[in-house]
Amino acid sequence: MGEFELIQLNFQALSAGADVALGIGDDAALLTPTPGQQLVACTDTLVEGRHFLPGADAADLGWKALAVNLSDLAAMGAQPRWCLLALTLPEADEDWLQAFAHGLHACCERYGVALVGGDTTRGPLTLTVTALGEVSAGQALRRDGAQVGDVVALTGPVGDGAAGLAVLQDAPAVSQLAHARAQALVQRYLRPAPRLAAGDVCAGLATAAIDVSDGLLQDLGHVLQASGVGARIDVAAIPASEALLAVSDADLRRQWQFAGGDDYELVVTLAPSTLATAQEKLAQIGHPPLHVIGKIVSESGLVDAKGGTTLHAPGFSHF
Amino acid sequence: MGEFELIQLNFQALSAGADVALGIGDDAALLTPTPGQQLVACTDTLVEGRHFLPGADAADLGWKALAVNLSDLAAMGAQPRWCLLALTLPEADEDWLQAFAHGLHACCERYGVALVGGDTTRGPLTLTVTALGEVSAGQALRRDGAQVGDVVALTGPVGDGAAGLAVLQDAPAVSQLAHARAQALVQRYLRPAPRLAAGDVCAGLATAAIDVSDGLLQDLGHVLQASGVGARIDVAAIPASEALLAVSDADLRRQWQFAGGDDYELVVTLAPSTLATAQEKLAQIGHPPLHVIGKIVSESGLVDAKGGTTLHAPGFSHF
Repeated sequence: MGEFELIQLNFQALSAGADVALGIGDDAALLTPTPGQQLVACTDTLVEGRHFLPGADAADLGWKALAVNLSDLAAMGAQPRWCLLALTLPEADEDWLQAFAHGLHACCERYGVALVGGDTTRGPLTLTVTALGEVSAGQALRRDGAQVGDVVALTGPVGDGAAGLAVLQDAPAVSQLAHARAQALVQRYLRPAPRLAAGDVCAGLATAAIDVSDGLLQDLGHVLQASGVGARIDVAAIPASEALLAVSDADLRRQWQFAGGDDYELVVTLAPSTLATAQEKLAQIGHPPLHVIGKIVSESGLVDAKGGTTLHAPGFSHF
Repeated sequence: MGEFELIQLNFQALSAGADVALGIGDDAALLTPTPGQQLVACTDTLVEGRHFLPGADAADLGWKALAVNLSDLAAMGAQPRWCLLALTLPEADEDWLQAFAHGLHACCERYGVALVGGDTTRGPLTLTVTALGEVSAGQALRRDGAQVGDVVALTGPVGDGAAGLAVLQDAPAVSQLAHARAQALVQRYLRPAPRLAAGDVCAGLATAAIDVSDGLLQDLGHVLQASGVGARIDVAAIPASEALLAVSDADLRRQWQFAGGDDYELVVTLAPSTLATAQEKLAQIGHPPLHVIGKIVSESGLVDAKGGTTLHAPGFSHF
């Protein structure tokens, strides 16, 4: 079966919407941008054995391959519109493809994204999604805008992604967890929820943003470096889920929170004067409030507000 | 070295242009679409051992990974603007990366494209480029517009791509070729030239178009199927390069022309009344004229105009 038929069969239904003049099935897709908006584009690859466990469930992969890209759009304050899928897989397994398309479809539907193109090739399992979104001109959240005096805040708890992976790997540290808690952590790892609504609220309000994909310290470090500033972090204020707190090894919990990655919460910086506005707008859409975890300072580096020691933990490396 | 540093070092310089508000180095790129234009998007993957020979020159790969995507934009009549690169490679070899970036850069410069984002991951060598272009609303060339009575035309000779691959594989059929001819064929295979100028001329004039990536008969077959028509082809009129004609095995030449792929010429259909206009506009920009190779008929299928037998040859399968 050729790429054309494979994609047609499994993915055609996802390609629809008023802003899609021509979807899957031609040389390229034809899309209608919204006047006055900037286009926001990113691409991320998941490789078997590096970004997911061999034999991972195809539907979970379909969801996650898109979700990690939508998380990048969320970190820009953008609204997602379209995506393209480059799928390299070792064999044309119809069941696998159907399940993968089902998971991708679920993520497309949940966040209002149309799959408008793709390419299917034979080779080692590799999933590359390109996501396209839009943001009002001048409102995008960048990494380089953090200002001295800003607060540093998280949209939700971190550390769950790494804990979920530990559950899947039968790590001893999580073997005593109650089933429901273990499953909650696994779902956070397998089916991350991009913080698009929070990113939308923060667009035009926050001074900088990034998503926590490779680990809080590493990702926040990119913001600090791009902005030419440092931060003091109140480690005790870093939010943790009830499921994560049930893990008894406090050092491991801390390690997962600092460097685990795969959380897909946003870390944002805001002038103290705009924090209340952001919290109000989040409350209006039923979103949990931001968790303030520290503040931006002029001295470079990341330090523990209590004690002043440098915080460091190597995050995930894609290479 | 992390993905961030790898991409920064080798690809940052390619990310520029008035329509790039924010290039490589943030969560996503910020681009400024041209008012009144439709966005054209496609993605294509090259896998080692399937789309290129193991050990292929990195600079050639950098060129081709982008060029094959630009060819898809050309087939839509679009002008290229931006691209994103998802690069999976087994090791962080600085020399390889530098050469790859050099080849990609050359293709970006030649066709006025800005590299605005990407992802570098470790794994089996796989190159995925997403290309973004623009076309005036309603002017895009699609596969489904061919009309009975249209002429079928090629922008240039086909068969060279497959012949070039045969040279690289030391095939006996090409062992007698003069060095210059052999090299000309190899260059056509390794450094394809997307027919963006011809596609631009044909936008709004041609009724349908596709690029010859998988083989003339297979690709033209997609147009016929999408348009619900057939075609009669004057096989003797299919253009061949002087280098290809130097291959003595006529059957092999024919096979390469029908099914070789990797040519990246465009095959277009035009009402006979617009053909002269297209030729005139091509002459004005110094482009060789279209080669008329047949006409669209109502009976489905592809037949030899001389004799009426069905033409078939399986093209390249990506899977």
